Amino acid sequence: MMYSFRNDYSEGAHPSILKAMNDENLNQKIGYGMDEICEQARALIRKECDAQQADVHFLVGGTQANLTVIAAALRPYEAVIACESGHINVHETGSIEACGHKVCTAYAKDGKLTPAMIQKIVDFHADEHMVKPKMVYISNATELGTIYYKEELTALHQICKELDLYLFMDGARLGSALTAEGNDLTLADIARLCDVFYIGGTKNGALFGEAVVINHEQIKKEFRYNIKQRGGMLAKGFLLGLQFKTLFENDLFYSLAKQANECAQRMVKVIKDAGFEFYADSPTNQLFPILPNSLADKISEKYAFQVQEKINDETTALRFVTSWACPNHVIDEFINDFKSYTK
Amino acid sequence: MMYSFRNDYSEGAHPSILKAMNDENLNQKIGYGMDEICEQARALIRKECDAQQADVHFLVGGTQANLTVIAAALRPYEAVIACESGHINVHETGSIEACGHKVCTAYAKDGKLTPAMIQKIVDFHADEHMVKPKMVYISNATELGTIYYKEELTALHQICKELDLYLFMDGARLGSALTAEGNDLTLADIARLCDVFYIGGTKNGALFGEAVVINHEQIKKEFRYNIKQRGGMLAKGFLLGLQFKTLFENDLFYSLAKQANECAQRMVKVIKDAGFEFYADSPTNQLFPILPNSLADKISEKYAFQVQEKINDETTALRFVTSWACPNHVIDEFINDFKSYTK
Amino acid sequence: MMYSFRNDYSEGAHPSILKAMNDENLNQKIGYGMDEICEQARALIRKECDAQQADVHFLVGGTQANLTVIAAALRPYEAVIACESGHINVHETGSIEACGHKVCTAYAKDGKLTPAMIQKIVDFHADEHMVKPKMVYISNATELGTIYYKEELTALHQICKELDLYLFMDGARLGSALTAEGNDLTLADIARLCDVFYIGGTKNGALFGEAVVINHEQIKKEFRYNIKQRGGMLAKGFLLGLQFKTLFENDLFYSLAKQANECAQRMVKVIKDAGFEFYADSPTNQLFPILPNSLADKISEKYAFQVQEKINDETTALRFVTSWACPNHVIDEFINDFKSYTK
Amino acid sequence: MMYSFRNDYSEGAHPSILKAMNDENLNQKIGYGMDEICEQARALIRKECDAQQADVHFLVGGTQANLTVIAAALRPYEAVIACESGHINVHETGSIEACGHKVCTAYAKDGKLTPAMIQKIVDFHADEHMVKPKMVYISNATELGTIYYKEELTALHQICKELDLYLFMDGARLGSALTAEGNDLTLADIARLCDVFYIGGTKNGALFGEAVVINHEQIKKEFRYNIKQRGGMLAKGFLLGLQFKTLFENDLFYSLAKQANECAQRMVKVIKDAGFEFYADSPTNQLFPILPNSLADKISEKYAFQVQEKINDETTALRFVTSWACPNHVIDEFINDFKSYTK
Repeated sequence: MMYSFRNDYSEGAHPSILKAMNDENLNQKIGYGMDEICEQARALIRKECDAQQADVHFLVGGTQANLTVIAAALRPYEAVIACESGHINVHETGSIEACGHKVCTAYAKDGKLTPAMIQKIVDFHADEHMVKPKMVYISNATELGTIYYKEELTALHQICKELDLYLFMDGARLGSALTAEGNDLTLADIARLCDVFYIGGTKNGALFGEAVVINHEQIKKEFRYNIKQRGGMLAKGFLLGLQFKTLFENDLFYSLAKQANECAQRMVKVIKDAGFEFYADSPTNQLFPILPNSLADKISEKYAFQVQEKINDETTALRFVTSWACPNHVIDEFINDFKSYTK
Repeated sequence: MMYSFRNDYSEGAHPSILKAMNDENLNQKIGYGMDEICEQARALIRKECDAQQADVHFLVGGTQANLTVIAAALRPYEAVIACESGHINVHETGSIEACGHKVCTAYAKDGKLTPAMIQKIVDFHADEHMVKPKMVYISNATELGTIYYKEELTALHQICKELDLYLFMDGARLGSALTAEGNDLTLADIARLCDVFYIGGTKNGALFGEAVVINHEQIKKEFRYNIKQRGGMLAKGFLLGLQFKTLFENDLFYSLAKQANECAQRMVKVIKDAGFEFYADSPTNQLFPILPNSLADKISEKYAFQVQEKINDETTALRFVTSWACPNHVIDEFINDFKSYTK
Repeated sequence: MMYSFRNDYSEGAHPSILKAMNDENLNQKIGYGMDEICEQARALIRKECDAQQADVHFLVGGTQANLTVIAAALRPYEAVIACESGHINVHETGSIEACGHKVCTAYAKDGKLTPAMIQKIVDFHADEHMVKPKMVYISNATELGTIYYKEELTALHQICKELDLYLFMDGARLGSALTAEGNDLTLADIARLCDVFYIGGTKNGALFGEAVVINHEQIKKEFRYNIKQRGGMLAKGFLLGLQFKTLFENDLFYSLAKQANECAQRMVKVIKDAGFEFYADSPTNQLFPILPNSLADKISEKYAFQVQEKINDETTALRFVTSWACPNHVIDEFINDFKSYTK
Repeated sequence: MMYSFRNDYSEGAHPSILKAMNDENLNQKIGYGMDEICEQARALIRKECDAQQADVHFLVGGTQANLTVIAAALRPYEAVIACESGHINVHETGSIEACGHKVCTAYAKDGKLTPAMIQKIVDFHADEHMVKPKMVYISNATELGTIYYKEELTALHQICKELDLYLFMDGARLGSALTAEGNDLTLADIARLCDVFYIGGTKNGALFGEAVVINHEQIKKEFRYNIKQRGGMLAKGFLLGLQFKTLFENDLFYSLAKQANECAQRMVKVIKDAGFEFYADSPTNQLFPILPNSLADKISEKYAFQVQEKINDETTALRFVTSWACPNHVIDEFINDFKSYTK
């Protein structure tokens, strides 16, 4: 039977989340996220972020979170700076542009923005004949599985303050980033350094849900209007609160992400040991090995994955993604299989 | 303990839906609604609609469905015709305008558009200095709980054909409409008479979900691009398919709506029997009694509801909504209470 | 030969404007309105408005001015309040909606908003499920030729302050309003009472051009970005400055408007004297007589005009507009003709 | 006294245009471009383009023309392909994005798109998670003064047909392109090869004005609604027709552009002869010499120009633009001055 490493949203939710839904199912709640369970989840997140003044809003998905935050923050002629590979630039069907805003991009091999890239873009946009960059969008983990370190995020925070830019972190895979080997950031650091960010539930044990944490007063203002206008106001909003409450009550958020990372890194090790290189150096739950096409074909008989990029006629960069639901025995089997293919 | 008649989304999902989610939870699926369960749900809906050529898409919520359909259908200068009380005109925070389109409105006491209203709006919009009406938006059941009859919908269909307008039915409460006493429409009728419509799950037994059924080729075209761009593409799309499959496998969709309607109509009866009038004559799961303020206060000690409109200094039109999850004994109790208050 | 009363933009510019263009034609200027002539025109306007702190921007046309101001002022979910008959609501092809904003309307027979209408609209929009009204749009003169008096504008100013709304006056026909019999407002009053307004040149002696005067700091901010983004930044911007400089150097602005008004009011008088009624009571350069169809047909043999509204099978409300370029002898002739038709 | 080579819109209009405006000034016309003079201008343009079926619309400026055409042509999720240096990508303050559309870019040193660049962008955009490229935007002359040759434009036409893309040429400097040395395209070629393009008046002898020529039926459809909605419908539209009629009645359009080109190329020659290199190889009215900073400083004492790009600490690429109004004696003087500076 085929096992899919295509993404980290192939399964439903951690059983404790389903159980919580079941337990609360017929208790009447106020709609639209104004219920007590959402309030409890918000309190847990504020505590975990050490950010008592933060506003916390729950949205269903990542594209929705990105477009709602950016549309809420920017005036019409203002633009957002992102990596060329950034999700908002490539994989959201122009949703930011549909809200009226340009995405200004810089190329970064590892998917991470630097202060120099930001400075160059701001310098280029000199007058009113050009858009005005006003926000920096980063992902952590990035599209290439790489993560930002505290020193890097602090530097981004500083240049954003200097240049009067909002710093926004897309945390669709924030669990993976925070539990990756070498990570030195905490949620509290991120809350201190970013004007707004979100904590991904969809890819880390929830059925769906992203928790947007807003620190900047300007973005906080009437944010619920933006949610409703963009179609992101869930009628049965308690479903979102319930999931985040479950994830943050018992560190489930971290343990699930850790499981995904460990599975991925075990795969990385066996591939590295066999002498193959990687398209990007990811310590998280995505891996991008560059493999001979014949080997890729062999693997594809039992495992599903994605093609990242054709490297040359003989080799291809592949993309494997592990999830919180990935059983250890699947990785054991993959390792055995891989060794046998490359023997 | 307080019972809420504030809306029909105070509870979670019918237990059979939760069970299905539980059963499928760890089976890996392809993302974004491309999985087999969604395909099965689509097949069931096409069959129920007797519309084998229809495209069926699943979205999370009603505002999202409305804005995605309308933005997909209209060119920038085209407008949508709706009742003044229409959900898109009043209760979606300008989401249609945020997609660039004007809502042209007509006043209708019962919340139902007529061919004459449509003709008048089209006649008024004479040239390129004005928007061009291109779509008619109706809700069934309406915001006032009223329903369209086959003769009425046929007439709307005909004038839309004559005037080259799309006919779009918001079916957030379509279950209630189809199971109301006096209804003479079927899903197949609606699929035949409307260019596009949706079948509401959120307010009828699902955790969330609206099934958009598209019959017009022009609106079908690349509709998934529109879903993704507007933030409505659910990563774990199988959750939507699963819910609609459950609702349509065993007529659950109809039996749940019927339960809601029956609860509401029992309340209508006791209030009518006591001699009170109604703001709108609804055969569905919403009721709008006009009650003395003192009686309203009394009721509010045990039951939550909404204020529809202040009628005069002594009386107010109230809004009670029942749901599929409303137990009969709650209605029994309400009836007893009401009788005792008005004795 | 036919004379047209169809509108007030049937002719070119006052000869002194053409002369100024000719004189300056080959002198090189800096582009985009940053030249000295624009600066001089801005100074003249600030002086006339007694508003030294105001920002003044020149735009080509009225729809452009309206959409640029409104898009610059509002956040995405914010709406603008206007009369049903307001130009932005009816005759701009949904340009405000194309910028993402809803127009909330009140019906006023005379085309003038009152504080009560504004209060009612604001009260109705209670929460984040509805748009948030944030600006009031009025025209002076209105679409029906009526004008605002100082007491009325002061009352609008006050309620806007109370409700935290911007007050925006469309002055496409401001010259006509300010020179109408009975008017008690000055440009300085308007600058004091409105957050933003514009002074129409197109309909008052210029080839084209509207001068936007901004008093509110929030709307001033980076306004030129908005102009450029919406396509309103004229390369040879000095053409706009030159026209307004000419209009305001020698009170030409007022004398031209006065001529238009006087022509119209002479027509009003002969029609009133003949016993006919008017659709609206306009002291400016538009008149809306309600005439028998046979009389209208007779007039149409020598004079072009527009139909405002069919009143009944025998009579129609017509719309005649006079311009600054209307020669007195044409009015003399019209009066004679009218008398002969109605003898 | 200073002479400005900053751009080609520093002066007003060719005297014959001012004369025509003067002659027609007080003749009443129908508004909004529906007058006879506009009709005559359209006929002249259709004839010159050998395109009797084309629709011709007159707009005031280039950004307005670009955004109106693109917004009219694309559905919300569709994107336009352009060079990185393309005017819509850099110098229109995100006006295309403000209409909801992404600009997908390719880098080209000479500012010219190739079929390979287009193919690569289309191939990359594989599914509904990404925008769908639907239009190719090119400028002729380009931002760097380069021009497209018939073979190149034919190749672009072919790949656009293959890939179902609209081909749109921004002709703000089309006169310069068509009269450049080496050019082998005619207006008729362009009308045959492009789905839509415009002929620039602003930079070639008019006060303002761009003539949009539409060949594709889909883009023709109700185009005037788009013009009005975007604020581009000039009330006194005859001013636009009058200017294009004058430009095309006696080949003035070509002779003016030729004069600008010849002035520029005389400057190119003297700079080349002195041994300097150029940033781009432009046969039109823009030149981009790379000069030592000391020389640039010297030139700047008598001539105004723009900085294109800092090359290194000692040299800078400059941008000089000549216009139709540039007198030969100014170029004579520049040549003498340049020789003396570099002696």
